[in-house]
Amino acid sequence: MNGAESLARTLLACGVDTCFANPGTSEMHFVAALDRVPGIRCVLALFEGVATGAANGYARTAGKPAATLLHCGPGLANGLSNLHNARRARVPLVNIVGDQATYHAPLDPPLAAETAAWARPISAWLRTADAPRDVGEYAAEAVRAAMTPPGAVATLILPSDASWSEGGAPQGPLRVPASATIASATLEDAARLLRSGEPAMLFLGGDALRAGPLADASRIAAATGARLMAETFCTRMERGRGRFAVERLPYNVEPGLAALAGIRHLILVGADDPVTFFAYPDQPGRFAPPSANATTLTSPGEDSADALARLADLLGAPMIAPPPRRPPPPATGAVTQAALGQTLAALLPENAVVVEEGVTFGFGLYAPMADAAPHDFLRLVGGAIGDGLPLATGAAVGAPGRRVVGLQADGSALYTVQALWTQARERLDITTVILANRRYAILDGELAAVGAVPGPASRSLFDLGNPDIDWVRVANGFGVEAARVETMEAFADVFARANARPGPFLIELVIP
Amino acid sequence: MNGAESLARTLLACGVDTCFANPGTSEMHFVAALDRVPGIRCVLALFEGVATGAANGYARTAGKPAATLLHCGPGLANGLSNLHNARRARVPLVNIVGDQATYHAPLDPPLAAETAAWARPISAWLRTADAPRDVGEYAAEAVRAAMTPPGAVATLILPSDASWSEGGAPQGPLRVPASATIASATLEDAARLLRSGEPAMLFLGGDALRAGPLADASRIAAATGARLMAETFCTRMERGRGRFAVERLPYNVEPGLAALAGIRHLILVGADDPVTFFAYPDQPGRFAPPSANATTLTSPGEDSADALARLADLLGAPMIAPPPRRPPPPATGAVTQAALGQTLAALLPENAVVVEEGVTFGFGLYAPMADAAPHDFLRLVGGAIGDGLPLATGAAVGAPGRRVVGLQADGSALYTVQALWTQARERLDITTVILANRRYAILDGELAAVGAVPGPASRSLFDLGNPDIDWVRVANGFGVEAARVETMEAFADVFARANARPGPFLIELVIP
Repeated sequence: MNGAESLARTLLACGVDTCFANPGTSEMHFVAALDRVPGIRCVLALFEGVATGAANGYARTAGKPAATLLHCGPGLANGLSNLHNARRARVPLVNIVGDQATYHAPLDPPLAAETAAWARPISAWLRTADAPRDVGEYAAEAVRAAMTPPGAVATLILPSDASWSEGGAPQGPLRVPASATIASATLEDAARLLRSGEPAMLFLGGDALRAGPLADASRIAAATGARLMAETFCTRMERGRGRFAVERLPYNVEPGLAALAGIRHLILVGADDPVTFFAYPDQPGRFAPPSANATTLTSPGEDSADALARLADLLGAPMIAPPPRRPPPPATGAVTQAALGQTLAALLPENAVVVEEGVTFGFGLYAPMADAAPHDFLRLVGGAIGDGLPLATGAAVGAPGRRVVGLQADGSALYTVQALWTQARERLDITTVILANRRYAILDGELAAVGAVPGPASRSLFDLGNPDIDWVRVANGFGVEAARVETMEAFADVFARANARPGPFLIELVIP
Repeated sequence: MNGAESLARTLLACGVDTCFANPGTSEMHFVAALDRVPGIRCVLALFEGVATGAANGYARTAGKPAATLLHCGPGLANGLSNLHNARRARVPLVNIVGDQATYHAPLDPPLAAETAAWARPISAWLRTADAPRDVGEYAAEAVRAAMTPPGAVATLILPSDASWSEGGAPQGPLRVPASATIASATLEDAARLLRSGEPAMLFLGGDALRAGPLADASRIAAATGARLMAETFCTRMERGRGRFAVERLPYNVEPGLAALAGIRHLILVGADDPVTFFAYPDQPGRFAPPSANATTLTSPGEDSADALARLADLLGAPMIAPPPRRPPPPATGAVTQAALGQTLAALLPENAVVVEEGVTFGFGLYAPMADAAPHDFLRLVGGAIGDGLPLATGAAVGAPGRRVVGLQADGSALYTVQALWTQARERLDITTVILANRRYAILDGELAAVGAVPGPASRSLFDLGNPDIDWVRVANGFGVEAARVETMEAFADVFARANARPGPFLIELVIP
C-alpha cells in the first residue's frame, strides 16, 4: 500500500469521512487512493478558501473534523484566511496539503513555495510526512491534535513521493483527551467573587454558549445579580425559544466599553479577556475597565458546562425556566435591521442553523432573533471576511436534514462567491440572504472613526455599486436559484418558500 | 504629516501612481491620505488575489510597478498565490500591507496574524515600518527593490499607528541600478560553444523574449545552426507578423524531453535551466539530457538584449529578415485548438495584449498565433492558477488604448472570477474568451500519468459540470456583457465585434 492509501484508510479509521477538496497534480495519488477506499465523501470546491471555510462550518455542526485537500504552496495560501478563521473559532480541522516530491523541490520548479512556512501560523500541529511509512502515523496524530479540546487546525503536508511510494501503514484512532475539568478551588474563587456584592459579569465563549451551560449561567445570574455577556463572535450558540438568551459584547469600541463599564469582576468562561478588533487613536485596547479584575473560570478547552453546573450548585442557585417567548408576526414595509430581525424571528425554521456574516447590517439582527424557533447561531470568528458562504456550505454538509440560513453581507460574500456552486452541486439545503447595501459600509464607519472626511479614493474604494452586482444572475450562473426582493412583504414570502423546498436558494435583499 | 501621507507622497515621487486595493480598517489612514494626495489612481478589487494579480499584469504592460493595498494578515494571505506568480514572473511590484497597531498586536485581537511570516516567502525585500519617520524611507527603498532588474515583489508592512502618527517624511526616488552588462569572456565562451559544431540551443526567457533580442537570437541561429527555444511560461513575449517566432518548451514531461533530446550545449539567456513542473515516478526532473552542459549567457536581471546583440556581432551573424507571414482566414466548423488558434491569428487586433491562462486547451494556440498581428503575449508564470482574469485586468490598466484578449480556462478563471467586476467598473478594453471544457482537464492527464484509473472521487473532483457554470450570467452579474458561442463561425463574429467596442466583453466558448 502506498502512502496515500494509508492516509485515506487512517482518516476513515479515525472517523474523518468528509473531505473538502481542491486538488492539483501533487495530490493525484491521494485522489487515486480515495477512489480505491470507499467511505470518504469528497466535496469539490472551486477555490481553496471555500474548502477551508466549509471544513470550519462542517466541524461546527457535525462536531468532528473534516479533512481538506489542498494543492501545494499557493493552493494552501488560497485557503489560509479561512484557516485563520478556523483557528480562531477553535474548530477541529485536518488540513491536508500536497507538496512537491522531496527530491524535486530542490530544483525549485515554478510552483515550489514554502508550504510549511505558510502553514505554521494557522496550525496547532504541523508535520511533513517525508516517507510513506510515516503517513498513517502522522495522520492519526493530526486527527488527535485537531480533536484535542477545544479543537484546532492540524496540518499534514504530504510530498508526492511519500504519497506514491509503497510502505504505507494505516493506523487506528489515538485516544483524544476529554475537556479538562477544573479544580474546586477555582470554583470557590469564582463563587467568592460572585457573592462579594461587587459588580460581576460572567463573560461566556466557546462551549459555554450551548443551551445547557447558558441555563446554568442564567441561574447563577438570577441568584447572584451577576450580569451575563457572550463574546462578540461565537463559534456556536444555541438560541431561540425555550432557551436562555444572553446579551453579547458589541463590536464597536464605544458601545463595547459602555457594556462593560462599572464591572469589578470579569469572570471568563471559555472566553478570552475581550479586546477591541483594532486599535484606534486614544482608545483603550481592552474592553473591560482598568479597575476590573479578569478571572478565568475556564479556559477554552476546559469543561465550561461542568464548571457552570458545579458553580451554580455551589452557589445554591435555584433552577429557573427560560422566559416565555412568542414569535412576532413577519414585518412589513421597508427593509431595516429591526424588520429583518423580526421576520427571521417569525419565520426561521425549527432547528435551523444560522450562519451570520452580516457585518454592519447583521449587527441589529441578534436581539430580535432571540424570539425565533430554536436554532444554532454560527458567526464568522477570526474576522477574515469571506467565510460566510463556505461556512454555510460546510454546516449543511455536517447537518443533513436541517435548514441552513445564511445572513450574508454582500461585500464579504464576494470573497468566496464560488461556494454557491458547491451548494448547487451538493444540493444543500441552504437559504442565503444577501444583505445588499452595495458598500463596504463598515469602512465608512472606520474612516469616520479615524476622523477623516471621505474623498475620491475612499469613495471609490468603499463603493460596491458602479456597477451593482446582480446577485440573481451570479447565483443562477453558479446553478443556484435566486430572487431579488425590496420589501419585507416580498422577503417574508420568498424566505418561507425557499426554506420549504430542498436545495439552495439565494435571496438578494436590497437595502435602501 | 502622518506616516500614511508620507507613504502616498513617496510612492508618487517614485513614479508609482496606480494602486490595486482591497483595504480594511487597518488601512483607513492610508486611504484617507490617498484622498488628500491627488495623482494616485485607486482600482478596487473585490478580492485580494485580484489586486495582486492585477499588479502583476500592470507591471508587464506599463513597465513599472503598481502598488497593492492589502488588509493585515488574512488579507495578505488572500493575495499570496498571485504574489507567488508575480515573484516567479520577476515583475516589479510594491506590496503594501496594513497591520495591527504595534502596541495592539500583543493583545492578540481576532484578526491578528503573522503578516511578516506570510509575506517573507514571496518578498525579495520586506520591512515593517514601526515608526512614522521610517515610512517614507522604507517606501522609497521598496520601490527601488521592486524595480531592481529583473524585478521583484517588495513588501512594506505598515502598522496602523505608524500610519496615523505624525512624523512622516516623504522621500524622493532612489537610483535604480540598470541591468548588468555581461563580460566579454562570457560572450566568448558562448561563441566557442556555438562554433563547436556540436548540437547547441539558446534557451530564452525573461527580457530575451522581446522582439529585438529574438531577432538577434534568430540571426545567431541562422549563422550557427543552433536551435532556439523559449521557456514554457513567459512574462512577456513580443510575437506576431513582422517578428521572429520561437518554439517554446512543452509543459508535459515527455514532449519536453523530446524537445531537448540530443542537445549538447544548452545556453541559458535570461532563463533558468528548465525543470519539470512536478516530479513523476521514474521520470527525470530536468528537461535537458544528462549529457547536456547548461551554460549561462545571462541570468535574469542581466542585459539579455545587449548580450545577444554582441554575441551575434561576435559571431559575424548577418542580419536577416523575419519570414513573411500572412493571416489565415477565420476558421469554421467545430471548436478545436487548431481552429481557435487560426481564428485568433486571423482576427487578433493590431498591438493587442494577449493574456493566456488556457491550461490544457491553451497549449495548442501558441503555434498558429505566430501568424497574428503583432502583439504582446503574457502567460501565467508561477503555476498558481487563477491569475489570468486579474492579469488581464491589470494589463489593461497599464496599457490604455490597446485591446487585451484573455484566453482563459474555465476552471482557473473561477479562482478569481471577481476580477470581472473590476473590468466593468474601470471600463477596461478586455475581451475574455472562456475556454469552457467544464473539467479540470489537466488533472485527467495527471491522474493517467500516475497510472491510476478514474473512480468516484476523481470523477467528482475533476468535473466542473453538474451544474455547468453559466458564464454569461456570471459575467452579467458582475456587470460585463457576454455571449455564449458553440461554433467557430459564431466565435469569429462575436470576437470581432467584442474587440471593436469599448469596455469588457466575455465570450463563453463551449468546447465539445
